[in-house]
Amino acid sequence: MPQLDPSTRDQLKAVSVATLTTCLFKRGLRNQFIQDVHPLNPAAGPMVGEAFTLRYIPAREDLNPITVFQDRSHPQRKAVEECPPGAVFVVDSRKDPRAASAGAILVSRLMVRGCAGIVTDGGFRDAPEIARLAIPAYHNRPAPPTNLTRHQALDINVPIGCGDVAVFPGDMVVGDAEGVVVVPAHLAAAVAAEAVEMTAFEDFVAEEVLKGRSILGLYPATEDRTRTDFARWRKERGR
Amino acid sequence: MPQLDPSTRDQLKAVSVATLTTCLFKRGLRNQFIQDVHPLNPAAGPMVGEAFTLRYIPAREDLNPITVFQDRSHPQRKAVEECPPGAVFVVDSRKDPRAASAGAILVSRLMVRGCAGIVTDGGFRDAPEIARLAIPAYHNRPAPPTNLTRHQALDINVPIGCGDVAVFPGDMVVGDAEGVVVVPAHLAAAVAAEAVEMTAFEDFVAEEVLKGRSILGLYPATEDRTRTDFARWRKERGR
Amino acid sequence: MPQLDPSTRDQLKAVSVATLTTCLFKRGLRNQFIQDVHPLNPAAGPMVGEAFTLRYIPAREDLNPITVFQDRSHPQRKAVEECPPGAVFVVDSRKDPRAASAGAILVSRLMVRGCAGIVTDGGFRDAPEIARLAIPAYHNRPAPPTNLTRHQALDINVPIGCGDVAVFPGDMVVGDAEGVVVVPAHLAAAVAAEAVEMTAFEDFVAEEVLKGRSILGLYPATEDRTRTDFARWRKERGR
Amino acid sequence: MPQLDPSTRDQLKAVSVATLTTCLFKRGLRNQFIQDVHPLNPAAGPMVGEAFTLRYIPAREDLNPITVFQDRSHPQRKAVEECPPGAVFVVDSRKDPRAASAGAILVSRLMVRGCAGIVTDGGFRDAPEIARLAIPAYHNRPAPPTNLTRHQALDINVPIGCGDVAVFPGDMVVGDAEGVVVVPAHLAAAVAAEAVEMTAFEDFVAEEVLKGRSILGLYPATEDRTRTDFARWRKERGR
Amino acid sequence: MPQLDPSTRDQLKAVSVATLTTCLFKRGLRNQFIQDVHPLNPAAGPMVGEAFTLRYIPAREDLNPITVFQDRSHPQRKAVEECPPGAVFVVDSRKDPRAASAGAILVSRLMVRGCAGIVTDGGFRDAPEIARLAIPAYHNRPAPPTNLTRHQALDINVPIGCGDVAVFPGDMVVGDAEGVVVVPAHLAAAVAAEAVEMTAFEDFVAEEVLKGRSILGLYPATEDRTRTDFARWRKERGR
Amino acid sequence: MPQLDPSTRDQLKAVSVATLTTCLFKRGLRNQFIQDVHPLNPAAGPMVGEAFTLRYIPAREDLNPITVFQDRSHPQRKAVEECPPGAVFVVDSRKDPRAASAGAILVSRLMVRGCAGIVTDGGFRDAPEIARLAIPAYHNRPAPPTNLTRHQALDINVPIGCGDVAVFPGDMVVGDAEGVVVVPAHLAAAVAAEAVEMTAFEDFVAEEVLKGRSILGLYPATEDRTRTDFARWRKERGR
Repeated sequence: MPQLDPSTRDQLKAVSVATLTTCLFKRGLRNQFIQDVHPLNPAAGPMVGEAFTLRYIPAREDLNPITVFQDRSHPQRKAVEECPPGAVFVVDSRKDPRAASAGAILVSRLMVRGCAGIVTDGGFRDAPEIARLAIPAYHNRPAPPTNLTRHQALDINVPIGCGDVAVFPGDMVVGDAEGVVVVPAHLAAAVAAEAVEMTAFEDFVAEEVLKGRSILGLYPATEDRTRTDFARWRKERGR
Repeated sequence: MPQLDPSTRDQLKAVSVATLTTCLFKRGLRNQFIQDVHPLNPAAGPMVGEAFTLRYIPAREDLNPITVFQDRSHPQRKAVEECPPGAVFVVDSRKDPRAASAGAILVSRLMVRGCAGIVTDGGFRDAPEIARLAIPAYHNRPAPPTNLTRHQALDINVPIGCGDVAVFPGDMVVGDAEGVVVVPAHLAAAVAAEAVEMTAFEDFVAEEVLKGRSILGLYPATEDRTRTDFARWRKERGR
Repeated sequence: MPQLDPSTRDQLKAVSVATLTTCLFKRGLRNQFIQDVHPLNPAAGPMVGEAFTLRYIPAREDLNPITVFQDRSHPQRKAVEECPPGAVFVVDSRKDPRAASAGAILVSRLMVRGCAGIVTDGGFRDAPEIARLAIPAYHNRPAPPTNLTRHQALDINVPIGCGDVAVFPGDMVVGDAEGVVVVPAHLAAAVAAEAVEMTAFEDFVAEEVLKGRSILGLYPATEDRTRTDFARWRKERGR
Repeated sequence: MPQLDPSTRDQLKAVSVATLTTCLFKRGLRNQFIQDVHPLNPAAGPMVGEAFTLRYIPAREDLNPITVFQDRSHPQRKAVEECPPGAVFVVDSRKDPRAASAGAILVSRLMVRGCAGIVTDGGFRDAPEIARLAIPAYHNRPAPPTNLTRHQALDINVPIGCGDVAVFPGDMVVGDAEGVVVVPAHLAAAVAAEAVEMTAFEDFVAEEVLKGRSILGLYPATEDRTRTDFARWRKERGR
Repeated sequence: MPQLDPSTRDQLKAVSVATLTTCLFKRGLRNQFIQDVHPLNPAAGPMVGEAFTLRYIPAREDLNPITVFQDRSHPQRKAVEECPPGAVFVVDSRKDPRAASAGAILVSRLMVRGCAGIVTDGGFRDAPEIARLAIPAYHNRPAPPTNLTRHQALDINVPIGCGDVAVFPGDMVVGDAEGVVVVPAHLAAAVAAEAVEMTAFEDFVAEEVLKGRSILGLYPATEDRTRTDFARWRKERGR
Repeated sequence: MPQLDPSTRDQLKAVSVATLTTCLFKRGLRNQFIQDVHPLNPAAGPMVGEAFTLRYIPAREDLNPITVFQDRSHPQRKAVEECPPGAVFVVDSRKDPRAASAGAILVSRLMVRGCAGIVTDGGFRDAPEIARLAIPAYHNRPAPPTNLTRHQALDINVPIGCGDVAVFPGDMVVGDAEGVVVVPAHLAAAVAAEAVEMTAFEDFVAEEVLKGRSILGLYPATEDRTRTDFARWRKERGR
């Protein structure tokens, strides 16, 4: 997996998921936001890292007794130990939150190992404990039943779907308090840079609007005055 | 749009959405509660105002490039500038929260312009910022992707559907921490007055129940004693 | 209804719903977690009690005018007065949260009467008030419209479905911040005892993982060292 | 159960479900059409009979092994033997078609016993065989898995919900090629009579429209000419 | 409304909806297929015509008594009389098939008036009668209850959403046995011409495949031999 | 892939999917029926074959232009050429029928190559043409839009989910007019043999029921007389 440039990582941490979706939309990508997941612990801060994936299929009863975890090479446990530090663990749970994708112990292990976050389009068990950990975690809703009741872990680090988004290993996965966006690896640097610019402009606009200025001509900047004002604003703030 | 009587507005601010739905039910209206939306900022207080509407249709790709906002008469932007102070901006997003109905900048503009609130049966982007604004806002879930990915703003202030409720311009839109109810304009005064009475009685009942009294005979007031006690309670409290 | 052994009740209060679902899974029961409900007031603490049920069917308009509550034997009101202290009131609302299963007054009455909690697979009205009561309450989402708009209370204390789970009167109903699990009455004591053991082990594992230990060999305890360490850990903590 | 008047039964067989829903709407009943079920065998003709009901709850694994059918008093089997000739067997399957509500053998037994039809808001197994039987049957979709995988038969002939409609034992259940409507018992005679009248008028209108006449003034009959023409049409046809 | 060129109409009748969606995809339009509707009468042949639209909003009870149809200018009835011959009547029913969008009498009137078809993303009542009419009709499922129970007709011939597709008056609406696609007016001629070419090639491919030829190199035509063979095939058939 | 024993194949062709689900239920497997798919061409006869799978993930726009099919190794096309004769092609489309899983040309190619059938939990384009082919095909609903609009073919012959069922390459896939069941490879012979026995008994029961016999004691065979009668019936018919 190619390493994410540290400056790109810093840029992605400083912009919003909403802004990134707009940058991707401008490049023709409309479906990069993982639908219907939210952070358990918004206080854990923004999440940025390369995707490392786990794929579940439906559980067949005879293949998923409680004893499967005796096997050290069980894909769920193996994946948790192999996810690189700095990466985001992304789970394809087929949008089914009726059983757990993972629980507090595995999420703790990812945190201790230095992983950047975890995302599932299903749910986590031990959600209250996970909400207290210092690692960003995103899911649909709490899912106390063990994954064995519905999910069988199968593949590690293959391309998957998560919340209706294609996720390829190494894509940039960025999360904030609203949710998670997947930035294709080859676009990460360009999108990050553009998003930083957009964020400056939107911060300027937000200030102006709160001062009482109309959005017409301001947002987008169709009037000269807007561009002049924004240039001065940037200069004053050193952005 | 007829102006809402200030005293009616005050009455509506002092009663709950739940109580209003009961008043409407008594008049044969069963579907006035906007289903499956919730407030981003319950602390912003109750929301009361006349409906001012925006209608979206599905976005067709060629009609919705990022450049459409260059047009000052784009319906979304125009509507935000035209929504009267005191009115509630209600958006028909066809119950689709996969792309934004609006974001923090537009909601800020509505707030600064003195609008009473905003409701969509889709979702907002910049939800964390909106949650910090002093204007009530209701949606289904955060929706970072730009509206252009799925929604095209089309009509301003026409009758719409929102969360399975018919909303006509000028209807009273009332929100509290539970959600939003639409009170037909011609019923607003009568319903508000009745709701104030019901609220007094329910406050009395709540106190009695917490003291240990059975609900039988009390709620509803089928026993004489209840009516006597309530009369005394009102007198004591000046309600 | 057989009384729940007080020590079993204490044990169930000290373990998580997630752990209980695993104990049930080991006994072949995969569907005991009530899907898609959450607590209004996680601060109210854990909920444990025997199930006492109410069954709703769809409301037919002519049978559900506002006047039905004049009847002291209306099943909703009657059930609230009959639910035994210590029991959990479980409502089959056919997973429909578009109208209320109950409101703050009835939930207050249950609280005052000493009931252990209330669960519906629909929604409550007056949700903000209920969230302030000292009784655990679980629902899908706020539902201000009166139950008469969609639900007719019919049967008291019969077997029901709630959130896709079979609930028999007298089953143990256990809730925590994640949700609610139904433990068949005859399994309550055995499951509670096993869950206490599992909880001790998982607490030990959680500590070890946070210290940096790998989950392989630890969780589950496939290495001798794990079992030795756990034995020492228990001894040190007196668990 | 009160017997259905034979002439009412004949009238109900001669009108459409659509017409009956309009008659019920005029009486304030908006939700009597069982949503999302269709006939397996439209050729079996119209279905009219009193409701006889079966209620399922979710299946708990330990209570639903294959051996339960050894018990002659198992509610599903008992109900099939007890359903009166002329009655319609209506099953509350909680709108879950993932397992069977019944199969061809039980439906055959109902047919041989003279029952008037069967309706479930779930699905039947052996759907192709049922489609060849001379008894009207309505479901959502084929459901080969045995009911034991998801449904436990519990109550016989209690009020239920079916496809979001309240069904009371003894209500008139009427089906045609479009679906099934539930007519409250006390309204059956009046609704049947009115529907016969409406059907005559709609047959007249249909003929006129196919001849090229505008619907304005014709449907509804707001012009005198329409009423005159209809009177002549009825006379000519003896209706 | 600009008239559709007769030769374009003929071309559109001779190609499939599937082929048209591919032509639109090549132009960047991914969402022009009306999701989840099907023809009641596939035997009625292909449907081609300009869109003429009707917009429903949710019905409010007091505005939708049975008497509203006494008004000759009721939008539903007016629209049926105003839809131009050759046009397709497209109804925005908010994807809600629980009440009728129209019934056999209105569909008959459209047929007699020379309209080219009717599409709703809800359902029709009198579906069996409509299935026997010689006008293509598309819906989600039979919906016997009168529209008044859930839908209020509001706008005539405005842009709408139908089955998640944007429909503008004058767009080409094309239906076959699979469903309905909306071709933006300005693309109709170009798309029709391209679809005719694609159809010829796919007919050639289908023949070759049935003769046993591999799809590799054939579909798409990446081998010279394929192009040569196709040229000969066209010549032989005069296509 | 191990070859399916020809006699097992013959047995599976002679029993129903419903019967097979019961045999699997007796072995603890409750979720082997592929939910919500149906045959396009019930006349094509029963389908039996080993699973050969294709996995789709969501389509990312830049990776799925129309030109991808120029690549002879595109997984969709490659899979169609590699699926062994006698096998069933099973597609994981993530239960999304909004774009095609395959069309008539590819299905024709599978037929010509001797494959036993095709199943998707999405939809096919060219459904009317597929319905006329002599190969069993199962889907959710017609899906004219090209797969490129929503699905990217990724993996060939890996374990997948299809309609909420785990499908492993080599599992027996059996379809009839009701739908499709997945029989784990190691159970195929035993389940087939048991199903043949059950089918004989159910054929006997069906005959008896149509003659007027009660199901009590007959189905299941809890009376001696049933067993005696069945023995004679088998002897008479040589089954």
